[in-house]
Amino acid sequence: MVNIAVLGYGTVGSGVVEVINTNHASINKKAGTEINIKYVLDLRDFPGDPVQKVLVHDFDTIINDPEVDVVVEVMGGIEPAYTFTKRALEAGKSVCTSNKALVAEHGTELVQMAQDREINYLFEASCGGGIPIIRPLNSSLTADEIDEITGILNGTTNYILSKMATDGSDFAEVLKDAQDKGYAERNPEADVEGYDACRKIAILSSLAYGRHVNYEDIYTEGITKIDATDIKYAKHLDNSIKLLATSKKVGDGFYAMVSPVMINQNSPLYSVNNVFNAIFVHGNVLGDAMFYGSGAGKLPTASAVVADVVDCAKHLHRNIFMNWSSKTLNLMSVDSVENRFFVRIKGSLTRDMEQVEQVLGHVETVSLPDAPEEFAVITDKMTEADFKAKAEKLGTVISRIRAWV
Amino acid sequence: MVNIAVLGYGTVGSGVVEVINTNHASINKKAGTEINIKYVLDLRDFPGDPVQKVLVHDFDTIINDPEVDVVVEVMGGIEPAYTFTKRALEAGKSVCTSNKALVAEHGTELVQMAQDREINYLFEASCGGGIPIIRPLNSSLTADEIDEITGILNGTTNYILSKMATDGSDFAEVLKDAQDKGYAERNPEADVEGYDACRKIAILSSLAYGRHVNYEDIYTEGITKIDATDIKYAKHLDNSIKLLATSKKVGDGFYAMVSPVMINQNSPLYSVNNVFNAIFVHGNVLGDAMFYGSGAGKLPTASAVVADVVDCAKHLHRNIFMNWSSKTLNLMSVDSVENRFFVRIKGSLTRDMEQVEQVLGHVETVSLPDAPEEFAVITDKMTEADFKAKAEKLGTVISRIRAWV
Repeated sequence: MVNIAVLGYGTVGSGVVEVINTNHASINKKAGTEINIKYVLDLRDFPGDPVQKVLVHDFDTIINDPEVDVVVEVMGGIEPAYTFTKRALEAGKSVCTSNKALVAEHGTELVQMAQDREINYLFEASCGGGIPIIRPLNSSLTADEIDEITGILNGTTNYILSKMATDGSDFAEVLKDAQDKGYAERNPEADVEGYDACRKIAILSSLAYGRHVNYEDIYTEGITKIDATDIKYAKHLDNSIKLLATSKKVGDGFYAMVSPVMINQNSPLYSVNNVFNAIFVHGNVLGDAMFYGSGAGKLPTASAVVADVVDCAKHLHRNIFMNWSSKTLNLMSVDSVENRFFVRIKGSLTRDMEQVEQVLGHVETVSLPDAPEEFAVITDKMTEADFKAKAEKLGTVISRIRAWV
Repeated sequence: MVNIAVLGYGTVGSGVVEVINTNHASINKKAGTEINIKYVLDLRDFPGDPVQKVLVHDFDTIINDPEVDVVVEVMGGIEPAYTFTKRALEAGKSVCTSNKALVAEHGTELVQMAQDREINYLFEASCGGGIPIIRPLNSSLTADEIDEITGILNGTTNYILSKMATDGSDFAEVLKDAQDKGYAERNPEADVEGYDACRKIAILSSLAYGRHVNYEDIYTEGITKIDATDIKYAKHLDNSIKLLATSKKVGDGFYAMVSPVMINQNSPLYSVNNVFNAIFVHGNVLGDAMFYGSGAGKLPTASAVVADVVDCAKHLHRNIFMNWSSKTLNLMSVDSVENRFFVRIKGSLTRDMEQVEQVLGHVETVSLPDAPEEFAVITDKMTEADFKAKAEKLGTVISRIRAWV
């Protein structure tokens, strides 16, 4: 029997308890032992809920019980999760978590602590919710040197962008609808400004490239400036706009970036809609691969956490290899990253194209009947710095979105 | 150091050697030891190829060398691969393979032999080429009870169907083009009749449901009867036709089936085109997930084989859990499986609809301007047996394709 303690009986925590109860027999078979929920830690009481029997209010009860083998930290946030995780690892207990903020902030240290003690710190649920991506990176794609990860890693923003494309509505309107439906938080900043996706791509990149990627080094741009007209242009071009979190090898360097991108139907990410997430991975021998599924939600996230619990149970006191060293990966400046740009410009296609091409070089053009006072172009590839300078010189740029088309 | 022997220096075998040489440093790091190719077995000689230094012609050299820890069987076919695999396992050597025919035919026995000896028989490359699917099923989706697997598991047929959709050409024409390009074999039967996909879904189902699925029990229908007019109807309906290999839980039973299916844009499999493969998995707590990538090709397949080698090296003399028991899963008769059907009917929509609805019940209708002597309907859900009887009664059915729309 392996005893576990669940820290936090919120959405994910109650999901973990539910999943373990629902699939008890098959989970025990796959773990090769019985998984027993010995404690659930929460400050609140839950009268009438069977969890009450194992509920404790004091973390010390858990940390001082030598029978607890695995701690499931699903509290979210940095503190007290960070302190609890360190104390659990110091006490020789493996830890599984869905806490992307903590993994992005202190993952390097916590992974190392687990390695030093021949136990495990696992976080499958921290990226892509229920999608198996961390374990495949650690143990399936071992023959490859990975040179790109590009993901739709945030369900809230993908829902908003999908809904804007379906309804033709503006960002603010759809955000309100998403908040009403519970898909977006009352304070939506972490999602819509790209901060959540930024932490996730930092974690995935650290594992894929074997060196610590600091999320604070990643250029991050959210979706708040995308409007209904952008979506119209995208549709006209048979493209879709997605918030992509990406990291790529370029020469001997790496860059990472979170931003809205126009993509076309040739991208496997094109048709990933609503709250679904997907992670595209390119390996030097594998080529293209993609992992798709529910990026959030109580049960999908709990499914990933419980899979980590099973792995911990199968590897008690045996560290599972993770390619995440404490050396930092120095990212290239985003200024030198090359992209194509979709650019909306004030003026008229016929009158102003000559000047636009003089500044931006060769472009493809597009105009919309119901946006008569502007037109748009898609540039060839150029560096971010180069584009910035040219756009300033032009003086009539309304907005720009990166284009992978 | 872990010594391996590669059986067969054909496409996949030479790919395995290439991958190990190309990514030597990173592979050794992830394996935690050096992977050394001690032997390559082939009846042929390869003068001028560096492989010549490790080439042997006699399997006994490998089996009698106690230094060989892992045997990579990439010969294909049942014999001598089956005998060699058994002898290797009996000698305490783990075996990795890309040989779906052998795994489908003798997997139950070979998995058991490896379990009994605390070694491993791994076959990631047997399904979906480079796509990580076997290892995720074994070690990632452990919190779930899987109730459906549906895959585009054969690159050749997916290429043919994609090309038919793009060019509007007929099956025979596109098959010839595929053969000329090397995407289809001179004898294409195993691919186009669905036999290859059938073996793969048998393997995936055995792992997912924990009981042996006999590939000979699976209803299998190929793509040879799909014609340019079917494709036109599909396009008109914004659908695509894919060869799907599926197994599903229905009540307490399971069915499995390989057949062309019309799917719509809501399916994540809709936009899986050309030689790409994808495997959709539904778990009772995870919900939908999909794994996408190169289903064939030298390096993607070799990538999966080498990932198995790495796993064997990390688990020498420690069996990796696989949920594949020797008990057989008795599949439901396909007669009782429910589907919707896309049905082409001789006659005219206006004249014959009343009779069609009398026999088939409520249907959606579609007609094409350039197929004036026929029309088509999509039925509601009914059992296969029910549909068969009704189609016979109608007497004017030209053809039918299952419809998941």
